[in-house]
Amino acid sequence: MKKFTSVSDIEDLPSLLAEALRNKKQPFADKAKGANKTLGLIFMNPSLRTRLSTQKAALNLGMNVIVMNIDKEGWALEFQDGCVMNGSTVEHIREAAGVMGQYCDLLGLRSFPGLVNRDEDYHEEILNKFIRFCGVPVISMESATLHPLQSFADLITIEENKTKKHPKVVLAWAPHVRSLPQAVPNSFSEWMCRAQKEIGLDFVIAQPEGLELNPEFTRGAGITHNLDEALRGADFVYVKNWSSYKNYGQFHADGQDWMIDNRKLKLTSNARVMHCLPVRRDVELAAEVLDGPNSLVLQQAANRVVSAQTVLKKILEAL
Amino acid sequence: MKKFTSVSDIEDLPSLLAEALRNKKQPFADKAKGANKTLGLIFMNPSLRTRLSTQKAALNLGMNVIVMNIDKEGWALEFQDGCVMNGSTVEHIREAAGVMGQYCDLLGLRSFPGLVNRDEDYHEEILNKFIRFCGVPVISMESATLHPLQSFADLITIEENKTKKHPKVVLAWAPHVRSLPQAVPNSFSEWMCRAQKEIGLDFVIAQPEGLELNPEFTRGAGITHNLDEALRGADFVYVKNWSSYKNYGQFHADGQDWMIDNRKLKLTSNARVMHCLPVRRDVELAAEVLDGPNSLVLQQAANRVVSAQTVLKKILEAL
Amino acid sequence: MKKFTSVSDIEDLPSLLAEALRNKKQPFADKAKGANKTLGLIFMNPSLRTRLSTQKAALNLGMNVIVMNIDKEGWALEFQDGCVMNGSTVEHIREAAGVMGQYCDLLGLRSFPGLVNRDEDYHEEILNKFIRFCGVPVISMESATLHPLQSFADLITIEENKTKKHPKVVLAWAPHVRSLPQAVPNSFSEWMCRAQKEIGLDFVIAQPEGLELNPEFTRGAGITHNLDEALRGADFVYVKNWSSYKNYGQFHADGQDWMIDNRKLKLTSNARVMHCLPVRRDVELAAEVLDGPNSLVLQQAANRVVSAQTVLKKILEAL
Repeated sequence: MKKFTSVSDIEDLPSLLAEALRNKKQPFADKAKGANKTLGLIFMNPSLRTRLSTQKAALNLGMNVIVMNIDKEGWALEFQDGCVMNGSTVEHIREAAGVMGQYCDLLGLRSFPGLVNRDEDYHEEILNKFIRFCGVPVISMESATLHPLQSFADLITIEENKTKKHPKVVLAWAPHVRSLPQAVPNSFSEWMCRAQKEIGLDFVIAQPEGLELNPEFTRGAGITHNLDEALRGADFVYVKNWSSYKNYGQFHADGQDWMIDNRKLKLTSNARVMHCLPVRRDVELAAEVLDGPNSLVLQQAANRVVSAQTVLKKILEAL
Repeated sequence: MKKFTSVSDIEDLPSLLAEALRNKKQPFADKAKGANKTLGLIFMNPSLRTRLSTQKAALNLGMNVIVMNIDKEGWALEFQDGCVMNGSTVEHIREAAGVMGQYCDLLGLRSFPGLVNRDEDYHEEILNKFIRFCGVPVISMESATLHPLQSFADLITIEENKTKKHPKVVLAWAPHVRSLPQAVPNSFSEWMCRAQKEIGLDFVIAQPEGLELNPEFTRGAGITHNLDEALRGADFVYVKNWSSYKNYGQFHADGQDWMIDNRKLKLTSNARVMHCLPVRRDVELAAEVLDGPNSLVLQQAANRVVSAQTVLKKILEAL
Repeated sequence: MKKFTSVSDIEDLPSLLAEALRNKKQPFADKAKGANKTLGLIFMNPSLRTRLSTQKAALNLGMNVIVMNIDKEGWALEFQDGCVMNGSTVEHIREAAGVMGQYCDLLGLRSFPGLVNRDEDYHEEILNKFIRFCGVPVISMESATLHPLQSFADLITIEENKTKKHPKVVLAWAPHVRSLPQAVPNSFSEWMCRAQKEIGLDFVIAQPEGLELNPEFTRGAGITHNLDEALRGADFVYVKNWSSYKNYGQFHADGQDWMIDNRKLKLTSNARVMHCLPVRRDVELAAEVLDGPNSLVLQQAANRVVSAQTVLKKILEAL
């Protein structure tokens, strides 16, 4: 593997999934693989799970890790080409990424979308410039439009908990109090659509009208505006808020009745409930569900180490 | 040891003290003990000594360390249960702690008191919720009401410097310019009261009226409002400001005459002077004392590695 | 080597340069040298290259590294002696440095100048107090007036790229949008003046009138106000802005015609172009030069690992 920014970077999904489950059982088996290799983790935004789990994964592989909060510890970055840098930005991504590539064997980058200019966000300008100029393999730690380390952890979690060959997996839009990126649902959908074909499951997305995701990531998914209908027979419900793709970045203020609680859970086939976290309790998801026996959220979070370690290992093997 | 939040977590104080002195002599003797173990250090507040010394202690034991400034690098945390999270907090301690416990074999937490609601602070709501939800052993790196890693280092320092079997140890309130927590004096008192019985020393607290500490932590201590009387015959003077427990969190603006200087030092039995640092020179403690031959403040700070390493080792052994 | 704050700390420059080139070829050859040694990196200002490259260098040597953004993660520091600390500063450099020296075998410090009080800056009060009170070897990671790790990396880069025995090296002042320190040009000049004698090169400084550097660092350099004249026959052009030493810290608003572009480059002997980064494109240096074949800026940045590793190794050997 030369980079990891999307499910498309994976050649053989079932075999990578099997490898992840093996890695989870023997987390220190490959500790020699990362010797004298340095992973640089570059954060342009806050991070808890990604920050800790990716470090842990790298340490399990015997790598060195250097963490950089580039927004707070470094210099204000410029991403536009051809501009005269006489404003507030101090360093261009060309130099910054180029330099980081000199010091690290592979790099992870977290960069959220602006949610203002859809084209810019969906062209992944920041991530792509970073990849182009750093010259070493890059792992997305959540980009403007995708969060593949999360989705891979989600797939592992579904695999560990499924009780039938073809479980029904529902991605259910949830209410929130502010405008959120589409990266997690885009990415989850992309992975589930692929798993639908290569691993086996039925994938349905439920959301209010006007909140349809970019169709590029939902090809093959069932799509409905009827949450109750989607929940019927569901084995897994993935709860997540997102802002509008159509009216780009717009916050959907209605939809309080979309919050999954125990009553809604009864419509399902005793579904396990998933969320990438952080979650706003009793806004996005009822506390009673989060604290109940059907919640998988901590197991998902734990599997972030497994997905990161599997990806890092693949990239180390290809260095 | 399953956690370390107070002297009560220690079964046998003299034997732990002896072990600490051994660890100090051979800091790298247990480097295999921490292999493949990860310590997560979670800071909700600034830290210099605790941050560096606890990392150093863990590295001496061969552990991996991950540091997280959760206030700046992560998400704003919610601690109240049962609230609808539609405000400024993004993640609940239930999930945040639960997730951190997935990634780390043990966790350290620093969380200062609000100094507004005494019940909340003294119930150690943040620390206790963190312990409850993270599911792994927790070390307090200073909580709302106690700072046991500091007090253990203080005890080690007294042991190293005592010239008689039963030295007189005085905790002396000192002036300051703003309202400070009671964690360090509470904790020091708790440790000294226990050492009084199990190791041997005489412990006296001197403070202006109205600044009595929570009696829960001072049982067995001599208590006086007369600083000069307390200093007479003292072998160790521990200098520290604290705000009022009675009028909770209230700043005591008077008491400039409580600052220890060389003149006051003459009342003692050539006492060694201690302070946990940071110290405001010529406000809490005279510069002439800090720079003089009786100051132990750097040795105390150095012993923070020893106390942390001894505690981490005990917890590693019980994992 | 007992400290590294200036070229004066180096006894034999040609032999250190030769060692650096050897270290670059075998970066992990000395991994045993740093075992159980801890390097503390203390940042009072932002840093990208220095932060990452010094960590990488230390890891290559098998050291432990602890990073501390003292301005954000610790306590506000006081540097003045004899003051009553009843203001906004919480900890004195005497204690802070003293404590850090207890935890680390060697320390790196980054502290920029205030650019207000020339005497204070040029006496290197912060760096010198830090050295005095920490009690362990200190490496400057850019001080008020010098940046020797950068200059050493620059010298390595020149050595790697020179095509004649005595290349002509020009330090060319460049325009900017705000007032910058003199540390990089002072330091580069100091190293080039020494290299002129001990390694062999011709060193010329070109700058507008009024921007002469402190003569203490430019003894032996050719100095001119005529950029074009300086560029003629140049093999290396080191581009850098600095504020006035004479009218201390003053910003020079004119001088846009001092920006090196391809047209100016034609005056040189096909010179390689250097800059310490971060660089403001099309303000300090034309994008066409940065992106062209003559730019050495990434190689310079890469050599920051080599200079840091060579210095750390020398200090480790003298511990």
